[in-house]
Amino acid sequence: MRSFILFVMFFAFSLNAETKVPDSYKSLFKPLPKVEIDSINENKIKLGRKLYFEKRLSKASDISCNSCHQLDSYGVDGKQFSEGDEKQLGGRNSPTVYNAALHFLQFWDGRAKDVEEQALGPILNPVEMAMESEQQVVDRIKEDKEYQELFKIAFLGAENPLTFKNIGNAIGAFERTLLTPSRFDEYLQGEDSAITDKEKAGMKLFVETGCTACHNGATLGGNMFQKLGLVKAYPTKDIGRAEVTGKDYDKYFFKVPSLRNIEKTGPYFHDGSIKTLEEAVSVMASYQLGKDLEKQEIQSIMDFLNSLTAEIKP
Amino acid sequence: MRSFILFVMFFAFSLNAETKVPDSYKSLFKPLPKVEIDSINENKIKLGRKLYFEKRLSKASDISCNSCHQLDSYGVDGKQFSEGDEKQLGGRNSPTVYNAALHFLQFWDGRAKDVEEQALGPILNPVEMAMESEQQVVDRIKEDKEYQELFKIAFLGAENPLTFKNIGNAIGAFERTLLTPSRFDEYLQGEDSAITDKEKAGMKLFVETGCTACHNGATLGGNMFQKLGLVKAYPTKDIGRAEVTGKDYDKYFFKVPSLRNIEKTGPYFHDGSIKTLEEAVSVMASYQLGKDLEKQEIQSIMDFLNSLTAEIKP
Repeated sequence: MRSFILFVMFFAFSLNAETKVPDSYKSLFKPLPKVEIDSINENKIKLGRKLYFEKRLSKASDISCNSCHQLDSYGVDGKQFSEGDEKQLGGRNSPTVYNAALHFLQFWDGRAKDVEEQALGPILNPVEMAMESEQQVVDRIKEDKEYQELFKIAFLGAENPLTFKNIGNAIGAFERTLLTPSRFDEYLQGEDSAITDKEKAGMKLFVETGCTACHNGATLGGNMFQKLGLVKAYPTKDIGRAEVTGKDYDKYFFKVPSLRNIEKTGPYFHDGSIKTLEEAVSVMASYQLGKDLEKQEIQSIMDFLNSLTAEIKP
Repeated sequence: MRSFILFVMFFAFSLNAETKVPDSYKSLFKPLPKVEIDSINENKIKLGRKLYFEKRLSKASDISCNSCHQLDSYGVDGKQFSEGDEKQLGGRNSPTVYNAALHFLQFWDGRAKDVEEQALGPILNPVEMAMESEQQVVDRIKEDKEYQELFKIAFLGAENPLTFKNIGNAIGAFERTLLTPSRFDEYLQGEDSAITDKEKAGMKLFVETGCTACHNGATLGGNMFQKLGLVKAYPTKDIGRAEVTGKDYDKYFFKVPSLRNIEKTGPYFHDGSIKTLEEAVSVMASYQLGKDLEKQEIQSIMDFLNSLTAEIKP
């Protein structure tokens, strides 16, 4: 009996020793901020949500924002490349809309400064919603008397509330509400039991492997550009950020994707070429950090990543 | 006159446009926390400060913590390698003690978990303070009656307050007070004019170049390991973190140094081989990010780094 108690004590102690995460590790992350809805932005958000599902924003009136960024599928469509208005394929994987408002810039190459600006991009993109002009978009929305009312209320006091730019402003306001706190946020806020010992061990390995170089802060990503294939060249023809800046040294730099809900938002990478999270973790460690992780190390990091999955009620 | 006003307006506008830093960029950093001194740690801190300058902690009683980490020289001695008790040279550059308490682990290779543990390392290191045993250290300090009193007060209620471990605990408590907020912290706290337009432009470039991959948070570094020579091999024989873990994939990984007061803490890198900040910025961009920065880009980043220099009253 005595040796059994000693055994239990020893076991409890080693478990504890293994999963204790120093506070300095935790400080690499941040809980997601609270969504703020007040009388000022409330009507903009309602209008934005309606526009998010509005198919008239596409030329053939067959797709909406939600077609590629599906709110009930963690903000993605699960495809390598999304289909545009006439089934044309885009050139990059559609990233999730959840938590995107917190990113430092928008799109894989950072060519829009915020979600308000981003939201307008695909509407006029010939391989996406394919509308021909800003005026055409405004005219389409104006056809609907209800929208005329909603814009007036959302942009109170504006002389001309229903503009192309305000369509982006409304969709952006809605997107700013799409934040997905998970158990991990409770953990960061002091609820130590909100994530399991296995997940804590994974978090420790995630930090010590160096993943936090790019995946840190509230969205574990989305706050910098990084070269895909930093340590060894990664096979892709897409030059990423260099397309925007024209600078040679920006070649193959992309915005680092957020890891929130990552297990649900495959396929992965700018080209949607990676099908499983396991492969994504392994390729990242190898091409970005020069580390060939063992199978159980990859599994441990995935354990941690699972704690970033939220329950979503769209 | 009218055209002059227009000119001034235009000039003011372009300046503003150039130096506006998005909030999402700022969120990569954090102001330094406030130092907390209360009745619980106050006496420990006083004792720690005395021990920090205590030469009896070295075999020949000729050097103290402050010899290599000089409080009135931004926490460094300005040498490539510091001299030990008998002028032996250490194998790595002495990092600054300022803000070190916030690092995720201690030493260039992370072999100590906090400043309390770190402080004891050099005392027993044969090429540093070269004391021969924990007992020898305790005996030396015990010789002084004043210390016996100070330990009693600092570790109130402890049966045996003057221990080797408590020497580390006291020095660590003191080191936790060595934080150096600068104008940059005021800026992060909302005082937009606390840093200049030039410094803001430098901050933007710092973020967009990718420096924040490793240099982020309150200490702009000190919160991860990273491979020195990530993009191309950097000439060094020091295998860094791999010495601690024995793992091949940890070769050439070092703790990322903090950039607080960086203009004052040269020479740079684990081997102190880089003499100027200009060269350090250039080499980092090239070896870590694969970017060959132009002279004026390096200067702009240095402009930003200057905003991290605090006025220090030791």
